[in-house]
Amino acid sequence: MADRIETLRTLMRARGWDAVVVTGSDPHCSEYPAERWKQVEWLSGFTGEAGDLVVTLDHAGLWTDTRYFIQAEQQLAGTGIALHKTRVPEQVLIPEWLESQFGSEGLIAVDGLCVGTDFAQSLPGTVISVPDLLNPFWTDRPAIPQTPIFTVNPGESRREKLTWIRGFLQEHECDGILLTALDQIAWLLNVRASDIEYNPFVISYLLVSQDDVCWYVLKDAVEDPDSAATFSILEADGVRMLPYADIDFLSSEFQGRLFVDAATLNYQLYSGLTAAKLPLEIGTSPVGLRKAVKNPTEIAGMREAHLQDGLAMERYLYWLERSVDAGREITEWDAAVKLGQLRADIPGYHGDSFETISAYGPGAALPHYITPRTHAPVIREGGLYLCDSGGQYDNGTTDITRTVPIGRISALEREDYTLVLKGHIDLAMAVFPEGTPGCRLDVLARMPLWHRQRNFGHGTGHGVGWFLGVHEPPIDLRQNLNPTPLVPGMILSDEPGIYREGKHGVRHENMMLVVPAGQNEFGRWLAFETLTLCHFDTDGLDISLLDRAEIEWLNAYNERVYRTLSPHLPREIADWLREKTAAI
Amino acid sequence: MADRIETLRTLMRARGWDAVVVTGSDPHCSEYPAERWKQVEWLSGFTGEAGDLVVTLDHAGLWTDTRYFIQAEQQLAGTGIALHKTRVPEQVLIPEWLESQFGSEGLIAVDGLCVGTDFAQSLPGTVISVPDLLNPFWTDRPAIPQTPIFTVNPGESRREKLTWIRGFLQEHECDGILLTALDQIAWLLNVRASDIEYNPFVISYLLVSQDDVCWYVLKDAVEDPDSAATFSILEADGVRMLPYADIDFLSSEFQGRLFVDAATLNYQLYSGLTAAKLPLEIGTSPVGLRKAVKNPTEIAGMREAHLQDGLAMERYLYWLERSVDAGREITEWDAAVKLGQLRADIPGYHGDSFETISAYGPGAALPHYITPRTHAPVIREGGLYLCDSGGQYDNGTTDITRTVPIGRISALEREDYTLVLKGHIDLAMAVFPEGTPGCRLDVLARMPLWHRQRNFGHGTGHGVGWFLGVHEPPIDLRQNLNPTPLVPGMILSDEPGIYREGKHGVRHENMMLVVPAGQNEFGRWLAFETLTLCHFDTDGLDISLLDRAEIEWLNAYNERVYRTLSPHLPREIADWLREKTAAI
Repeated sequence: MADRIETLRTLMRARGWDAVVVTGSDPHCSEYPAERWKQVEWLSGFTGEAGDLVVTLDHAGLWTDTRYFIQAEQQLAGTGIALHKTRVPEQVLIPEWLESQFGSEGLIAVDGLCVGTDFAQSLPGTVISVPDLLNPFWTDRPAIPQTPIFTVNPGESRREKLTWIRGFLQEHECDGILLTALDQIAWLLNVRASDIEYNPFVISYLLVSQDDVCWYVLKDAVEDPDSAATFSILEADGVRMLPYADIDFLSSEFQGRLFVDAATLNYQLYSGLTAAKLPLEIGTSPVGLRKAVKNPTEIAGMREAHLQDGLAMERYLYWLERSVDAGREITEWDAAVKLGQLRADIPGYHGDSFETISAYGPGAALPHYITPRTHAPVIREGGLYLCDSGGQYDNGTTDITRTVPIGRISALEREDYTLVLKGHIDLAMAVFPEGTPGCRLDVLARMPLWHRQRNFGHGTGHGVGWFLGVHEPPIDLRQNLNPTPLVPGMILSDEPGIYREGKHGVRHENMMLVVPAGQNEFGRWLAFETLTLCHFDTDGLDISLLDRAEIEWLNAYNERVYRTLSPHLPREIADWLREKTAAI
Repeated sequence: MADRIETLRTLMRARGWDAVVVTGSDPHCSEYPAERWKQVEWLSGFTGEAGDLVVTLDHAGLWTDTRYFIQAEQQLAGTGIALHKTRVPEQVLIPEWLESQFGSEGLIAVDGLCVGTDFAQSLPGTVISVPDLLNPFWTDRPAIPQTPIFTVNPGESRREKLTWIRGFLQEHECDGILLTALDQIAWLLNVRASDIEYNPFVISYLLVSQDDVCWYVLKDAVEDPDSAATFSILEADGVRMLPYADIDFLSSEFQGRLFVDAATLNYQLYSGLTAAKLPLEIGTSPVGLRKAVKNPTEIAGMREAHLQDGLAMERYLYWLERSVDAGREITEWDAAVKLGQLRADIPGYHGDSFETISAYGPGAALPHYITPRTHAPVIREGGLYLCDSGGQYDNGTTDITRTVPIGRISALEREDYTLVLKGHIDLAMAVFPEGTPGCRLDVLARMPLWHRQRNFGHGTGHGVGWFLGVHEPPIDLRQNLNPTPLVPGMILSDEPGIYREGKHGVRHENMMLVVPAGQNEFGRWLAFETLTLCHFDTDGLDISLLDRAEIEWLNAYNERVYRTLSPHLPREIADWLREKTAAI
């Protein structure tokens, strides 16, 4: 990696750049980019899902958050790249750091395609956008992905959605809206593909005006028959298919006032639009919030997907326990493969929703551990095994974490296991008035840990898409003061954890649906309904740490899991599940 | 009141104004104005502490929040003034409402002295500032108050504070700072007076530059000897005393860049400064946050003040219980007077910190009930009595609410009493990492109520000044997403409640000090230390609703109250307190 950084510096010297900022994103500000845009990984070797790199002539640094500190320290060792920690009180973010180095005099180069407008504008000095900045020396760079595109039926037609967004344009006195976020485009057009691993998106841009829909989607190669069929369907709904690269000509072809969302608009495109003096209305795309509220068809699909996913999980946990009991050598990798096979058998399966984290003992202390394909640790008695996984199905998306005790566990493991579950339950039990944002509830999942001065460095919950991204903005349950209120139909994860480097990690995660919970003289009330169906192992608990209400919630949940799943399970697994879900 | 509104409309017609906005504040954006500035009350009859009035030619409306709905409905009855509710999901605030009436075409008159700059700038249409707008027909309007000014010694000298703020000016490249908030001026100059009831402030403006301190404080009448002595002391520290009204000449006398805080700068003054093209640096005054963090002298003083205040409270509660037991007719008003007398006996007493709320039964359902002087309800067996009160002492400020069961209470009263105390305790027990703002903890006090779909419409906690305002920004514990982190030395109230119109009200309130709670691999930890010393009555509890940890907290707190206070109490009250604080 060090030689790639040096090559970049040669380019920097030739061009007179003081710094190059390389982000881990793509032209659509995606959280998970395709291989082509894994520029940070290519330059630094760091494989974490969140990380930005700054290279100057005498420094190279990687900015990443608490989730990836341990991983980054390991992967950056020997590269000469320093770790800059974010989401810690003493953090110095990239704009401040650049300011401290160059004041307002620096010449900062960015690959404008892969940098959001908001971020680019926050950088000090003179920022220049150089599209595909690494291309001159990244000779075997992967192409822009192009996978078969198919349609979905989420209970709301493409035409209905187009009518809705045209109403938004009218209300905001705009002539068109440019959608750049891939999940928003997939939602609006009711299309899916596999352009990005785990994320069923189509890499494209979408322009909707009152009388036209332009989808910048066609890439270089010949299109496949599935996509061709999809395009025919879309054409019938008034969608025009255009080359992906033609987005560069947008400003010369579109007339009028254009609504754009700076949070997902890349800086290169933004610079082009402003240079062409196209009148822009910069705001938050309405698709994000609308998409977060699932309709009845989507909710029914999610329930069914979680039933099937829960059956796979129970088969999996049964297999794992029996295998370890029988003394078989199961590695973390074997376990992940087994779970993947069980999910693949589910009708409507379209791949996993993210890379399975299968981690035993110290590995689980990395919240985003990557299980090694070879020489993976063996899952043996005397520790905690953590598995975070999920599936993409044509009726929904799942995301579940179970931590299970394998044999005897230590007192500290037991305490951590219990306190994290206590926090999980306290959040799941919440009742709250209409208008409450997730950030006001986050503390419920943390206080059992905080009371013993323990904590975790990631959010407690994220929004989840319907057969879309497993991390779906704009809602969450976390420290950041996101003011978006929770409303019925939203789906979030509830996943507190604890991570002790070199020892163990615990995380307990379910998906929850926001549901109405009645109305009285104090107002209208909301609550969470747990969608995930898979028992929590009670063997790992120190019951003395749980309150009565928490025990009642746990018993009721495990009983519901048993009653819902057991009719669909083979007798021996159902019997095992009966024992596993016995009331405590 | 209706004729005053009509007189105002005559003026409006003559001047061509579409609307007049009258706020409940003063030229310093004070929460509690002096009599002179109670313009909303004079026009509408509404006496609540928060309310703004909008008068158009065919509508008059009062905007106030949940705390005052019941009171406003009663006081506005028959006036023709409509109640516009705020802090409810469907709220339409004044700027939006004006927009809905006049679009951007309205001519909106405000008394610019009594309207904050931020608020004035949020109004649509053409806003004109008319100082003392009501003067033409408010003939007996009270004068600007002028009470004796004295100095205090809070462990940090005036010179030290001036040096600190000059450092701030240097850092922000400003030549001067104009302080307009009365509590900030009192803090910086170490002065106090009684210009505003319950708030020991001096009505004045303060300009600090590197080589000058101008205090715009002198009013019309002859100054008293106490103030004269104070002025001598201040002169020795380089402070120049100027007429209060001379603030109008500030822009002609001050040269250079001026730091102002738009949140407490009145619109008239702001308009004058901008018209004179004085270069302004608009930001948040650093005094607010600095003042919120109490120094060791202030903390020691607050502890002592709370000890003395607690002794008065226990004497009071003993007297109340014995009086009711003996069948004496004690009214809410008698009780308030008795408590005031007990506080007045405390050395260093400078009056109450706000008007005592002494409320029995349904009266307590108004969170800001005003006890009637005559025909006040009698406190008798069979209900809940709520008393919210506090004192100003030369070593600190107190604020305490106790709700006590008088004789037998209903099952609902008992449940409400317990759930509110449960919330109070859950917040008091919180442990939290450095960097946590109060808004993230607010839910702890509410969740026991929310679980049973009950709630309260006010904040859970407010900052408290050191012998200053009993409500002190910029910290709080409430729904609003105030991002200011809590740090050691800050003092806040913890006061959840519940209010059932026509039935009863419950509130349990203590003051808490933010204290360090250690450091470990998860970071640095903070917790609350309760400053208030007065037992919580356990007779009102349904113990089955409390968790073990809550019961332990309550027993430990009551025991601490007994051990700390009993040595200073007469034998019979100490014995009574022993019983009252027996472990449950």
